[in-house]
Amino acid sequence: MPKLWNETIEEHRRAVRDAVLDATAALAERHGPRAVTMSRIAAETGIGRATLYKYFPDVEAVLRAWHERQVSTHLARLGGLRDGPGSAAERLEAVLESYAAIQRRRGGHGDVGALLHRGEHVDRAHRHLADLVGGLLAEAAAEGDVRSDVPAAELAAYCLHALEAAGGLPSGAAVRRLVAVVLDGVRP
Amino acid sequence: MPKLWNETIEEHRRAVRDAVLDATAALAERHGPRAVTMSRIAAETGIGRATLYKYFPDVEAVLRAWHERQVSTHLARLGGLRDGPGSAAERLEAVLESYAAIQRRRGGHGDVGALLHRGEHVDRAHRHLADLVGGLLAEAAAEGDVRSDVPAAELAAYCLHALEAAGGLPSGAAVRRLVAVVLDGVRP
Repeated sequence: MPKLWNETIEEHRRAVRDAVLDATAALAERHGPRAVTMSRIAAETGIGRATLYKYFPDVEAVLRAWHERQVSTHLARLGGLRDGPGSAAERLEAVLESYAAIQRRRGGHGDVGALLHRGEHVDRAHRHLADLVGGLLAEAAAEGDVRSDVPAAELAAYCLHALEAAGGLPSGAAVRRLVAVVLDGVRP
Repeated sequence: MPKLWNETIEEHRRAVRDAVLDATAALAERHGPRAVTMSRIAAETGIGRATLYKYFPDVEAVLRAWHERQVSTHLARLGGLRDGPGSAAERLEAVLESYAAIQRRRGGHGDVGALLHRGEHVDRAHRHLADLVGGLLAEAAAEGDVRSDVPAAELAAYCLHALEAAGGLPSGAAVRRLVAVVLDGVRP
C-alpha cells in the first residue's frame, strides 16, 4: 500500500530537520557553537538558505533544537548505563563517569554553552537526571555500598554539582580523579 | 585643621552610596532582590528620587553595586576564617561551612541571583575563592589531614562546585550533611 501523502511530507520534514541538526553538531564540534551560522549550515547540508529559514527562524532556534537533541541523547545514554549489568555501585560509577565526560565537553563551549544551558528542557533534564542518580544511590545504599546517613536525593544533588567541576579540568586523568573523589564522598 | 572641601564632598557621596546599598540589602533580605525598585529605595532611605538617579542610572546598577559589596563582604569573612585559629583542616571546615551557608541564601534569590551572579567581579571572586580554599587544602594535605593523591587546585574546584548544591537544600541540617559529605571526599 502506498504511503499517505501526509506521511511522506512528514518524513521529508524530519529528514531535513535531522540533516540541519547533524550539520550543526558537526560545526559545533569542529569550531564551537558560537561559529554556527545559517550560511554555514546551508553550505554544510546543501539545503538552500530560503528553505532553511522555513524550518528555523534564526540560528538561535537551530542551536536550541540541537541542544535539546544533545540533552536527550545524553539522558538516553545515562539511562542505558543505569539499566546495564553490574551492581548498583558499579552502574552508579559508570553513570557518574559518563556525566563527568559530558560536563567536560560542555565546559569547552564557553558563553554559548552557558546560554543554551538555560530553559525549560534543561530544567526537566536536570530533574530527570537527579531522579536517575538518586535511584541508583538508594539502590546502592540498600546493598551497603553507599552511605545511608544522608538521603539519596541530597547525595544525588551533591554528585551532580560536584561533577560540574569537570568543565574546568585540563585532562581526562583529572576528570577520573574528580569522579573518584566524588565517589569517596558517598561511601559508607 | 578643617577638612578639605573635596574630602567632605567625597565623604558625603560615600555616605549616600552606603545608605542606598544598605536599603537595597534590607529590601532584598525582606522581599528578595526582584522586589527592589528605585521608588522603594527612595522611600527606605529618604533620599529623593532625583538625587538617587544622580548616583545610579537604574535599579540594575544599584543591584550590581549591592552584589559587588555582598561578594566582597563574603570574601572578607571567608578570608578571616582562613586566617583564624586552629589546624588547616579545622579552618578548611569553617570556610566550607560558611561558603555553603552563603550558597544556600543565594539559592533563594532565584533568577535575579543568577543574573547578578555573572560578570567580571564574580569571576575575580571565584578565582580568589579557589585560591583561598586550594591554599587551605594544600596546607591540610601537608599536615596529613587531606588526601595528597589529587592536586589541591582540583580538590578546591570539587569542593566549591559540590557546595553549590546547598542552594537547593531544604534545611540547615541538610547543608551540614552536605559539608560532611564534601569533606569525606577530600580525606586521605
